[in-house]
Amino acid sequence: MKIPPVKGTRDLYPELLAPIRRIFDVWRDVSIRHGFEEYDGPTLEYLDLYREKSGEELVGQLYRLTDSGGRELALRPEMTPTLARMVAARINALPKPIKWFCIPTLFRGENVQRGRLREFFQWNVDVIGSADVVADAEVILVGVEALRELGLTSADFAVHISNRRLMAAMLNAAGIPEDRHGVAYALMDKFGKLDPVEFDRHWDTAFGSHLLSAQLRDMMSSSDLDAVESLPGGRNSKELREAAAETRRLMELLANFGITEFCRIDFRVVRGLAYYTGPVFEFYDRSEKERAICGGGRYDDLLGKMGKSREPAVGFGMGDVVLSLLLEEKGLLQTGRKQQVVFVLDAEESLRPTLLRVVAGLRRRGVPTEFAYSWQAIGKQLKLADKKGVSAVIMLGADSTNPQLVRIKRMAGGQEREVALDELLADPRRVLEQDW
Amino acid sequence: MKIPPVKGTRDLYPELLAPIRRIFDVWRDVSIRHGFEEYDGPTLEYLDLYREKSGEELVGQLYRLTDSGGRELALRPEMTPTLARMVAARINALPKPIKWFCIPTLFRGENVQRGRLREFFQWNVDVIGSADVVADAEVILVGVEALRELGLTSADFAVHISNRRLMAAMLNAAGIPEDRHGVAYALMDKFGKLDPVEFDRHWDTAFGSHLLSAQLRDMMSSSDLDAVESLPGGRNSKELREAAAETRRLMELLANFGITEFCRIDFRVVRGLAYYTGPVFEFYDRSEKERAICGGGRYDDLLGKMGKSREPAVGFGMGDVVLSLLLEEKGLLQTGRKQQVVFVLDAEESLRPTLLRVVAGLRRRGVPTEFAYSWQAIGKQLKLADKKGVSAVIMLGADSTNPQLVRIKRMAGGQEREVALDELLADPRRVLEQDW
Repeated sequence: MKIPPVKGTRDLYPELLAPIRRIFDVWRDVSIRHGFEEYDGPTLEYLDLYREKSGEELVGQLYRLTDSGGRELALRPEMTPTLARMVAARINALPKPIKWFCIPTLFRGENVQRGRLREFFQWNVDVIGSADVVADAEVILVGVEALRELGLTSADFAVHISNRRLMAAMLNAAGIPEDRHGVAYALMDKFGKLDPVEFDRHWDTAFGSHLLSAQLRDMMSSSDLDAVESLPGGRNSKELREAAAETRRLMELLANFGITEFCRIDFRVVRGLAYYTGPVFEFYDRSEKERAICGGGRYDDLLGKMGKSREPAVGFGMGDVVLSLLLEEKGLLQTGRKQQVVFVLDAEESLRPTLLRVVAGLRRRGVPTEFAYSWQAIGKQLKLADKKGVSAVIMLGADSTNPQLVRIKRMAGGQEREVALDELLADPRRVLEQDW
Repeated sequence: MKIPPVKGTRDLYPELLAPIRRIFDVWRDVSIRHGFEEYDGPTLEYLDLYREKSGEELVGQLYRLTDSGGRELALRPEMTPTLARMVAARINALPKPIKWFCIPTLFRGENVQRGRLREFFQWNVDVIGSADVVADAEVILVGVEALRELGLTSADFAVHISNRRLMAAMLNAAGIPEDRHGVAYALMDKFGKLDPVEFDRHWDTAFGSHLLSAQLRDMMSSSDLDAVESLPGGRNSKELREAAAETRRLMELLANFGITEFCRIDFRVVRGLAYYTGPVFEFYDRSEKERAICGGGRYDDLLGKMGKSREPAVGFGMGDVVLSLLLEEKGLLQTGRKQQVVFVLDAEESLRPTLLRVVAGLRRRGVPTEFAYSWQAIGKQLKLADKKGVSAVIMLGADSTNPQLVRIKRMAGGQEREVALDELLADPRRVLEQDW
């Protein structure tokens, strides 16, 4: 008779949700402060949207369903295809650059592991309509500032930056044909995970005639743009020089924004998704023990694939799961500011109607207020207030000679004070917060 | 190539999401102020959870899917079964009464009509662990206060209150056997929708030997508890007297809370869901032209069905769709407070690095800040600032003799002032907000 939660989903009891809500608040505040507007879209989309827009890995993990009319639907595994669809539908009406964010729930039927769930939240930040690399820098800035606001420093995490355009130019310069770039990226994506001997064998079998794996490995292990330009054909490739210049400019802009200490070049970052066309980046904890906290990059072709004119775009997704693991490890998982709650109690049961009036009145004027549902002896009510950790109690009927007088006690200092009920209700915040 | 959104889902562009986010903010603030804690649960649940807990109508509308292991899942059509599962799993550890709220996305494969979508948001407020009717009153209070905070008055909406226990006692008193109560409720639920002649025919065929439809109709059209007690067998039923007393007490408590003007007894309210056991209620716009804004009631048996001891509970769900229609009709659909945004511009392109530093510095100190991605002539930058409706512009390089001086212009009054860059960055809020 007991039905468990589905594996990879979460029962978010209040104490588990509170730190996630604090993360949401920071994501939202930082987005708005950087000029991004919030949007949202459907959880349910036509399956075709992902078949055409997402990488193979995501399509394999889709939760699919069929509606009553027999149409194939899917639960969104990422937000970008929905974003592209929404922007494409209004591309001419929206002023550019479009700076949008959202915090959707996403679904992926993958294996549940540390840092990976099947249902999770993901902050998405995107700029559409600007080809300027300032947009890439701003998007990275937003991500860094949010983690900073959550308490993380440059000792805790770093932004690893690469450039798909640069990597394409590098492969082109070495003479690797374009239709084989996908295979090359897939291998490069496994660079850190495969045994070096394994890696060399795979790479040299496929591409050794163009570029030796030893050369590639040196380049990928360095964080130096020169290392790319020194590869075979590199010095003579205009395309490669331009992509390197773009990457240099990005690093300069990040320095102008004052976040150099967080940012480093790292050619190991490839990004699985098919649609990236320029700078790509991933945020990692400094120990690199956890999965990426955040990943994103430039995807200038995606809107073009929606049947619209090509529209430059850059953005990232940051999930709540890996981020929460890192915050927890650093002792930074917080539940936000504790509410100041007052507790109203009554010395006699006959005061219940007054008590209910006072409770509703305080709440209506913005004061979080609690009370005992059933009348109990005053000692029991006080104990209940204490257990709830309230900041003050308000006692009705404390003075039997004057029913209009209420006694307020502050729990922290223990100070007590009597005020007229009407005065309290007229401006409760003033009465409760002023110096006594 | 163009893939549309799924019918009954919403592409929430920023201007469409803003009023919904304002509703969320009010729901959340009002919940917390009334002592409720936020929780959340999975969107995906095992199909069996709803097969057993939800009414037939909802089960028929479920979005079903099968996971990779062949297990049958469903998208949640309501939150209560998840809540019951979560509470049942920790029933002994949680201090009572449990006062929780959440704002889930729900999914129902029903016909799309005015006020009905297939994917929507719903505020859920529940008290578990108190059999006291004060809990019922408090839950209604929370709903009323939220609508009040959104700008609605007692001229705009009313809470229609009935009692399933009272209706059961009424049917019992008339001699209608318990196993036929379900049929009776289903008919009563259609009271307002069926043609009166139709209604009479259906009712009298089924139950005329116990209770004439004319009598039932008089009762259902009245808002008087006496009308129930006067029905056949009513005066002699202890059960009925108790349920009537409970309903009277609820109305008194609502008066104590100061919301009598919003509340009325209405026996036409039945509530489709199977699990209600006591007071039930629905919020309607005064014209009663729209569907219910909110519906809820007491469901003391649901946790017992989860294999735990019977646990008293009361709660409601309020969707965003009908509420938004009503707010729009009343001119109360707002986008919340407008952000005060400043715009930083530079007189010369050589100032770009300084500009980026200033932009990041202002944002880091909490000031929403915008700028043009590419340098443009100052007039064009000003035009852009104007189009964005910013509250102030900050111009770098306004004084060519002193590069440390920036000029601030307030858009509303047109006042201008020059300050040192360092002074601005040290405490931008003070500089921007103080009287000049």
